[in-house]
Amino acid sequence: MLAVFCVRACSGLGGLRTATRVRSVHSLPGITVAQIDEEVAKLLQLKAQIGGDDGKHQFVLKTAKGTRDYNPKQMAIRERVFNTIIGCFKRHGAETIDTPVFELKETLTGKYGEDSKLIYDLKDQGGELLSLRYDLTVPFARYLAMNKITNIKRYHIAKVYRRDNPAMTRGRYREFYQCDFDIAGQYDGMIPDAECLKIVHEILSELDLGDFRIKVNDRRILDGMFAVCGVPDDKFRSICSTVDKLDKMPWEDVKKEMVNEKGLSEEAADRIGEYVSLQGGMDLAERLLQDHRMSQSKQACAGLSDIKLLFSYLQLFQVTDKVVFDLSLARGLDYYTGIIYEAVLTQAGVAPAPAEAQNGASAEESVSVGSVAGGGRYDGLVGMFDPKGRKVPCVGVSIGIERIFSIMEQKAEALAEKVRTTEVQVDISRADLIAEIRKRTSEA
Amino acid sequence: MLAVFCVRACSGLGGLRTATRVRSVHSLPGITVAQIDEEVAKLLQLKAQIGGDDGKHQFVLKTAKGTRDYNPKQMAIRERVFNTIIGCFKRHGAETIDTPVFELKETLTGKYGEDSKLIYDLKDQGGELLSLRYDLTVPFARYLAMNKITNIKRYHIAKVYRRDNPAMTRGRYREFYQCDFDIAGQYDGMIPDAECLKIVHEILSELDLGDFRIKVNDRRILDGMFAVCGVPDDKFRSICSTVDKLDKMPWEDVKKEMVNEKGLSEEAADRIGEYVSLQGGMDLAERLLQDHRMSQSKQACAGLSDIKLLFSYLQLFQVTDKVVFDLSLARGLDYYTGIIYEAVLTQAGVAPAPAEAQNGASAEESVSVGSVAGGGRYDGLVGMFDPKGRKVPCVGVSIGIERIFSIMEQKAEALAEKVRTTEVQVDISRADLIAEIRKRTSEA
Repeated sequence: MLAVFCVRACSGLGGLRTATRVRSVHSLPGITVAQIDEEVAKLLQLKAQIGGDDGKHQFVLKTAKGTRDYNPKQMAIRERVFNTIIGCFKRHGAETIDTPVFELKETLTGKYGEDSKLIYDLKDQGGELLSLRYDLTVPFARYLAMNKITNIKRYHIAKVYRRDNPAMTRGRYREFYQCDFDIAGQYDGMIPDAECLKIVHEILSELDLGDFRIKVNDRRILDGMFAVCGVPDDKFRSICSTVDKLDKMPWEDVKKEMVNEKGLSEEAADRIGEYVSLQGGMDLAERLLQDHRMSQSKQACAGLSDIKLLFSYLQLFQVTDKVVFDLSLARGLDYYTGIIYEAVLTQAGVAPAPAEAQNGASAEESVSVGSVAGGGRYDGLVGMFDPKGRKVPCVGVSIGIERIFSIMEQKAEALAEKVRTTEVQVDISRADLIAEIRKRTSEA
Repeated sequence: MLAVFCVRACSGLGGLRTATRVRSVHSLPGITVAQIDEEVAKLLQLKAQIGGDDGKHQFVLKTAKGTRDYNPKQMAIRERVFNTIIGCFKRHGAETIDTPVFELKETLTGKYGEDSKLIYDLKDQGGELLSLRYDLTVPFARYLAMNKITNIKRYHIAKVYRRDNPAMTRGRYREFYQCDFDIAGQYDGMIPDAECLKIVHEILSELDLGDFRIKVNDRRILDGMFAVCGVPDDKFRSICSTVDKLDKMPWEDVKKEMVNEKGLSEEAADRIGEYVSLQGGMDLAERLLQDHRMSQSKQACAGLSDIKLLFSYLQLFQVTDKVVFDLSLARGLDYYTGIIYEAVLTQAGVAPAPAEAQNGASAEESVSVGSVAGGGRYDGLVGMFDPKGRKVPCVGVSIGIERIFSIMEQKAEALAEKVRTTEVQVDISRADLIAEIRKRTSEA
């Protein structure tokens, strides 16, 4: 069997059995993917025949790295959180859809920038090349383009996959839920954007996780800021990724990375440093519209005007107490085109504080437990899938559940709360029924 | 590059470059999995270099083969079906758990027999070797062993993955939901088994899908039958797989496969043929207990006594009208150790009938739309994961939703039913609100 196989394996690549003839393949244009697939299949079959792994090894009883099971108690808490979130999404008129857990690899290609390296690929077992979804936004955009939908409010709650460094005690997993709410379609400026922020406010309030803050910025403000600070065009993305680290690193280290690693001039970095330290509300947007440097950028001005409009809606919704315009917010994903936002819990003691807490950082930093929601506007993503490039403006928000679960679990434990996991109404294994059955059986 | 590669590809399998030397591989024990892995990696690299697909390719806007999206209408139907199923599971006192979508590859190894080739593997991107779950039963057994749980009633509703030939119009997908209910632990004989059948009966009745039938058999009866019919021990599994095809192939073809492909004697095959044509209830079990051949097998007798006991409980539950003891039911999976069952819808016209319909098969066969639920007893599976091999007796049932969805969708369309997909309570983008906002903004 092995001999037959090897002859066929070698001859498969163009019917060649000798070294001389093999070498001449170089000039043969006839080798095809189908032939390679066939050879791969044969080799894998052989591998299966000779028994999987070489030698013996011990079986390890565990879940895959960065993943977890949910026991019935945890499921009960999870269901409660989902119900709150779904209730809010439905109140706001969203329908729900579902998409497969894997997509064609090329559907995900070129959507996530530097983060693409974290995508899980499926093994090539013949047929299409597939990857596990990295978020629910790209599959949503693919769904809209595929079904030519130009107007929808939808929510989608499902697991996504990232080959990231897991930090499970802090709620960072390789498999985790996202609860996404998105609005696609033409609307009056900033109305759907404000609704997304309203939703985050409603959900985090209702879940009663302690105080929180929603940071808001705009990609156009960031790009405009980079331009007026003297960042070369081709470095926008890369500098933006560095700015994104400001929630984990002090400014000095961020500046060092900009200057030493990314080759930015010290002056440009310092100018950026001034801007990214700014936080405020509508007043800050107004002030920056008058700023001698910022006002030179059309892009920045468009972003700042939208922030102003956004805050006027947020005032109406009475949520401005939690929302802050923060020029240091960058967010990693490539596809954002306008407003971006991120919600963080600020209550002390509900979850392990980050390392900075020990280094005398400000009180506010020291109690941050990290981001629990994020999102923004992505007006170009659907167009990347549409054969004619037709754009569908979209804005959305994603609630990350794992950190919220951790907090809810800790709370439940602290309260020694009895979580109900069953709703028994029929218990057909109880003793009296058995007795009844036996009685009838013996009567028969 | 191609020439170098081909030389190496051929030489990789033992350093051989000519046909003569290739033939001698037969006597070489030295071929290793590592070498095969290396060759496969090279071939795939070559494939990537020559461009994935042959020549240039257009981006195709689609979901992966064998998968589908669910639009809001379909989701509404799906939710309704889930609610019915979950309602039943909860009435019967089940808690729910969740497990990751992928498991360590070796967790799945050796559990599915011939079907293992349908498992989706993840690409080796460094780290653990992972596979997508093939069912929810093996992850459940892994969960029990890992958490040392010896007694639980749990349900689990989640997607599973099989690289099968999709037939999407008939509800066969590569990604599909399973709704599993399992009882682990020591109970009086056949009580939990009967409860599983009761649950199938309740759910299929409540979903109102037309008439159905639940076939029941026992692995021990099959094995005993094979033994007394003269099947050699080492052919049980393989002959069992052939018997499993009786729902798709006529007996003549099944017999041919047994005799010509699997090398069974014609007499043995004929004896099996007599048994597998039998269907009945408690009476058939009693009759077979007296059968001169069957009664010689201790295993078969144990199985037949349990079938009798089972039917006595089913009578009490008043579900015997739908349950039939059918000796042709085999089921593919390796891990079953006792009773097995499968539910089929028998109503005409609700879904495409199988090919036999045109060949003058019996009325009952011609209207079968295929299996919608299946399960059985697997007393050895948890022990395969426990470091000390401690067994936990388990029995369970899995409801397949996709065929049910197809039928419900067709019904909804036929009724031109308006499926409600939203529950709008807050519509903050409506015109009057915008007007209000504008008014206030201009006042400010």
